[in-house]
Amino acid sequence: MSCIFCRIIAGQAPAEVLYRDDRTIAFRDIHPVAPVHVLIVPIQHFDSLNSLSEEDEALAGHLLVVARRLAEELGVARSGYRLVINTGSEGGQTVFHLHLHLLAGRRMPFAGD
Amino acid sequence: MSCIFCRIIAGQAPAEVLYRDDRTIAFRDIHPVAPVHVLIVPIQHFDSLNSLSEEDEALAGHLLVVARRLAEELGVARSGYRLVINTGSEGGQTVFHLHLHLLAGRRMPFAGD
Repeated sequence: MSCIFCRIIAGQAPAEVLYRDDRTIAFRDIHPVAPVHVLIVPIQHFDSLNSLSEEDEALAGHLLVVARRLAEELGVARSGYRLVINTGSEGGQTVFHLHLHLLAGRRMPFAGD
Repeated sequence: MSCIFCRIIAGQAPAEVLYRDDRTIAFRDIHPVAPVHVLIVPIQHFDSLNSLSEEDEALAGHLLVVARRLAEELGVARSGYRLVINTGSEGGQTVFHLHLHLLAGRRMPFAGD
């Protein structure tokens, strides 16, 4: 299994897991760029958002709702947070298993910066 | 109607609309920070992602799939793109109607920058 996120999901690589259900896992980024930096990841492997079809809408929405709930549990829902999905090289994607960054704990500069 | 995005949806404020269906509208950001900068917006008004509940998962996922399809139509799916949802003041949210930024056309620096 060459995908690092699939290895984490299988318990074959370490991670600080904050949440898990039958469709989703969330763990802290090992190279945080903000005081709160959590990755929300589907259990099913998708290379990127480009692999997501209409039939996956419920799963995709679940990732967003899990992120929202984590923001509450981590105490940043009111102060604010940013969700980011990077796709492809110009998008800044570095791990090719779909994931959503939850960033908080400091003021974020404008969206695309 | 004080919400600028609700006014755009109602046809009472101008926008360069790229896509519309019964749940979603997408239009170009009037202050683009990248060569491609499109906002994907639910027709229904939610102040932010914090207002989204479990029952809205399908709608939330639909926003992501619409963004993915727009990336293809705009010719940036392969080169890459970034999706961003800002929530609250530290998250950088400026319009309080839930929206998703689609950014592409230049190399994006790392997620939280």
